[in-house]
Amino acid sequence: MRHGGFQITNPTHVRCRFLPEDQTITTELGTTILDAAHAHDIPVETVCAGKGTCGTCRVLVRDVEAPDATPHDKRRLAVTQLANGWRLACQHPVQNGGLYTHPRGIRAVRVVESAGLGRISLDPNVQKIYVKPNAPSVHDHRADWTHIQEQLAAVAGDLEPTREALTRLALIGDAIPAGVTVVIAGNRVISIEPGKTADESFGLAFDIGTTTVVGALMNLNTGQEIAVASAINGQHIYGGDVISRMSVTMRGAEYVDRLHRAILDTVSTITSECLQSSSVPPEHIYEITFVGNTVMTHLLLGIDPSRISYSPFAPTTVDPVALTAFELALPVLPSASVWVAPAVASYVGGDIVGTVLSTDMGRRRNTTLAIDVGTNGEIVLAHQGKLYATAAPAGPAFEGAEITRGMRATPGAIERVRITPLDIELDVIGGDDPIGICGSGLVDAVAALLHVGAVLPNGRLLTQEEMQDALPHLASRVRDDDTGGEFVLAGDPTVEDQSIALHAQDIRQLQLAKGSIRCGINILLREAGLTAADLDRVVLAGAFGSYIDPANALAIGLLPPVSLDAVHAVGNAAGHGARMCLLSLASRVRATDLPGRIHYIELSAVHDFQDHFAQAMQFEQRP
Amino acid sequence: MRHGGFQITNPTHVRCRFLPEDQTITTELGTTILDAAHAHDIPVETVCAGKGTCGTCRVLVRDVEAPDATPHDKRRLAVTQLANGWRLACQHPVQNGGLYTHPRGIRAVRVVESAGLGRISLDPNVQKIYVKPNAPSVHDHRADWTHIQEQLAAVAGDLEPTREALTRLALIGDAIPAGVTVVIAGNRVISIEPGKTADESFGLAFDIGTTTVVGALMNLNTGQEIAVASAINGQHIYGGDVISRMSVTMRGAEYVDRLHRAILDTVSTITSECLQSSSVPPEHIYEITFVGNTVMTHLLLGIDPSRISYSPFAPTTVDPVALTAFELALPVLPSASVWVAPAVASYVGGDIVGTVLSTDMGRRRNTTLAIDVGTNGEIVLAHQGKLYATAAPAGPAFEGAEITRGMRATPGAIERVRITPLDIELDVIGGDDPIGICGSGLVDAVAALLHVGAVLPNGRLLTQEEMQDALPHLASRVRDDDTGGEFVLAGDPTVEDQSIALHAQDIRQLQLAKGSIRCGINILLREAGLTAADLDRVVLAGAFGSYIDPANALAIGLLPPVSLDAVHAVGNAAGHGARMCLLSLASRVRATDLPGRIHYIELSAVHDFQDHFAQAMQFEQRP
Repeated sequence: MRHGGFQITNPTHVRCRFLPEDQTITTELGTTILDAAHAHDIPVETVCAGKGTCGTCRVLVRDVEAPDATPHDKRRLAVTQLANGWRLACQHPVQNGGLYTHPRGIRAVRVVESAGLGRISLDPNVQKIYVKPNAPSVHDHRADWTHIQEQLAAVAGDLEPTREALTRLALIGDAIPAGVTVVIAGNRVISIEPGKTADESFGLAFDIGTTTVVGALMNLNTGQEIAVASAINGQHIYGGDVISRMSVTMRGAEYVDRLHRAILDTVSTITSECLQSSSVPPEHIYEITFVGNTVMTHLLLGIDPSRISYSPFAPTTVDPVALTAFELALPVLPSASVWVAPAVASYVGGDIVGTVLSTDMGRRRNTTLAIDVGTNGEIVLAHQGKLYATAAPAGPAFEGAEITRGMRATPGAIERVRITPLDIELDVIGGDDPIGICGSGLVDAVAALLHVGAVLPNGRLLTQEEMQDALPHLASRVRDDDTGGEFVLAGDPTVEDQSIALHAQDIRQLQLAKGSIRCGINILLREAGLTAADLDRVVLAGAFGSYIDPANALAIGLLPPVSLDAVHAVGNAAGHGARMCLLSLASRVRATDLPGRIHYIELSAVHDFQDHFAQAMQFEQRP
Repeated sequence: MRHGGFQITNPTHVRCRFLPEDQTITTELGTTILDAAHAHDIPVETVCAGKGTCGTCRVLVRDVEAPDATPHDKRRLAVTQLANGWRLACQHPVQNGGLYTHPRGIRAVRVVESAGLGRISLDPNVQKIYVKPNAPSVHDHRADWTHIQEQLAAVAGDLEPTREALTRLALIGDAIPAGVTVVIAGNRVISIEPGKTADESFGLAFDIGTTTVVGALMNLNTGQEIAVASAINGQHIYGGDVISRMSVTMRGAEYVDRLHRAILDTVSTITSECLQSSSVPPEHIYEITFVGNTVMTHLLLGIDPSRISYSPFAPTTVDPVALTAFELALPVLPSASVWVAPAVASYVGGDIVGTVLSTDMGRRRNTTLAIDVGTNGEIVLAHQGKLYATAAPAGPAFEGAEITRGMRATPGAIERVRITPLDIELDVIGGDDPIGICGSGLVDAVAALLHVGAVLPNGRLLTQEEMQDALPHLASRVRDDDTGGEFVLAGDPTVEDQSIALHAQDIRQLQLAKGSIRCGINILLREAGLTAADLDRVVLAGAFGSYIDPANALAIGLLPPVSLDAVHAVGNAAGHGARMCLLSLASRVRATDLPGRIHYIELSAVHDFQDHFAQAMQFEQRP
């Protein structure tokens, strides 16, 4: 017992040390390394509880001679591991002065609760492992990285160090033997940091919307959101929807590059904002995940999306794409992994894959319909484990565009409309006088007018004369004209330019928009052999899904006739999907598999599409 | 028989087409696809010659209905392959109008002869495969990349498309179904090009010397050198040897970056020169391999090499490093693979691994000694399959530095010296009057003076008086002084500043230099239990090894006493190793394994090093 730098004199006890805890313990002679560790709450893993069969309790024995390998050691450890001093902790008693390194809690799965959406099992792609490499000496000139690999041998086999990691390792220099933390993403070593830094592990999850980009800085150890920031997609100057953006990219490769740089600028700005508000240093961001519609993910990667805009609407790729932050010049660790979620088709993108993932539609056995309402409405139906999806071109009415007094949901927009027996009540964003109406206000207004009978099921607005008979207290709000008339929601009805009115043509626009989406829903239901009565749950995803009044969405027939209780707004389910893919490899694997499981239906190829559409445009008959 | 776009009327024959040859053939009804192909020299591969057992003759059947799978098909092909229309060519008769795609000659090994050094088996890491993807249609909206993957399914399983490849694919756009060539490096798809471009496949092999950088542009299909260029290493302004370079990097990270950029600039310049002289477009360079000493490869990658300069001389890594051209901003296809050869130790680098590879020392059974003479002399000994290596710090004498009238081997340098019975004959680089003496001239001069007895075995130069007795015709060339005297090689001996003389101290410098290397050789021989008599072959690698006169290298005892026939100068063996690693995956695998097989001996840790060194400094007694 003359090994190592410290000994004890009591011959019935031995003292030894464990890494990465750097904890010294004293224990009775003859105790196994595994038992000694567990008695002191050092989490050496085991599955078989010490029988020697599972091989998970391996430790690297140092500062003392490694004991002779037992048959269990030989069965469970590779020859090179044995030669390097790895042994099963359950097979050997602790030795006085021994130093035992164990691979701590790799891939230990914890579960993180998340508001509204599914739970995330925490098993990120990124691991940080603290090791204390042997110091080089005149008798051991091996490279620093070789010494580190020796320590990592039991944890991971085929690690590829990046240039970034090696560069950082060299700068740690003489401090390397004091201990370094190795950052691993997949099988790539993406960084090596001085000292113990495993507590500092962060990533970013992005939802790239055509309009808005949202990024969340997540703690990869706890699953907590540390910061969140959003910004208008920098491509907005090239048009509000994906069709306009693609018409720009068709001008040539230079324009593809402009849109590519515009979205990267937005992502970089959001990243910097998250880093600043959280004081997390850029080099502690190890991974970034992205979801977005197919045009947005193409442009994020700099891939010309033009072909998506014309028949037969083929994207370049729908597979997940893995690259590095350096390739996109993002302001984080250059070797950080970037993962872009897969898409289903040109108009059912990675955002919908994220939604299906986070609403757990792919695994639930019940029948769920999910709708992301926007210029392009994406619809997914899950029934008994089968998934169907389609895209319905709704046009911009839900975003307040192409509506006479329409506007985005910004201050001054009427966002809620109620017609009481006496009057009309309006909610205006910001509380000041209204200056226009946004999508949710439009739905409310039409639903209310339908409810009182001022708008007929076919969409026609009553004339002033008809109104005088049926709803005299509202008659003064109707202004007849030869294009269907209009209904004044706010302001003095007698002064046209001081009032905000809903025109018959606006009602028509809403009919077209809701008709398109409802038509998609109906066709998916038919494809699955279902009716609305079979639906257990209707999920409204996305920003608009959160603003819209579910009762009114039912009232105008945007949604099929289900109980109001069955309708759930889940907010940014796509962004939640991006977070799941960041925090959980299992989720990422599911996301990767999902597109292959989703049966995509192209509405324009459905033979009786026109009939479905004409029918879906009608407002429902009130019961 | 009504499939496809072309038919024949003769009912006893069928016509079909093969890809990637795009060759239409007519053959008898009932002939198998395999036999039909072989009858027309279409190289569908087979190992079992049609028994259905090897599975290598798989073809993708198109334009006709794929025949029912046989049990052999089912055993050898995956379900997804069968579903996509892959069949074994030996199992099915050709169908009229059928289109058969076969994975052409993947990894077919050819052998390329190379001047002086070993033969290279041609199996590059880079493959180019021509495919004709199905066109997307209103009934098949799958992504372009999905259609291409379908065609590649039988060739390679788990391909990862790079951003670069996807970006290029999108730009091919509507021309994709007309056929594209997919460029694969390892499992990465690094480019996709329109049309058939498999004939255009190039790479670069670099030898990064401390002084000189050499790059060769190689045709990966033929193994031919297309262009070669060299340049002074741009780091030269920071000092001539690795020790000076490292003293600069120790000033801080900014200086590491400066040296990193300097070598990258040199590599970029050479690359551009090779591209210009060959008219090969940058995007057809798919891979670059590098060999270099350990300090140079560290700096190439931007890794601070400072630790190599002080005890215990630990490098950051000796493993091969794989990265992309984009990471080093090299002016070729950004996704091109970059591979940096592994090293053995701090002072036995990837250049020596390249030398061992290209001289085939690792596989020959005979006893070979290889020496790369320079400021740092690297020595490798191979005996019965075992390899030993060491590094001997020779100092700069062989490069003409620290010699009174020393200079590099540039115009004006005396490069050859012969002493005839009547006079002294000199060869001067460029043919003009001499202005100094370079390394090979120094070796010649000392060897000649030893031969005639003007320099004694202990290195002492005769005085003028002694010379008058022994060699009167040379006596006027000796100038005595109190530091050992000097011998005038050229010019008027009576006018000091019009003559070029070899000083006794210069002879001493040469003794130190050759002593260091010879000491290394002797210690390696002892380690292997050998003597000089056991050596079958002595290989002089590197530029200096080509300039030096082997007989004189033996005469001064730089080399151990072997027959002159056994000495071979092999030129830039390191650079040849880089080419082998570029052209042959098998060579690359051998290079990767070599460092683990080489037993490295640190001279400073050899207990009786001083005795060996003192003995090695002596000149040999003439027989």
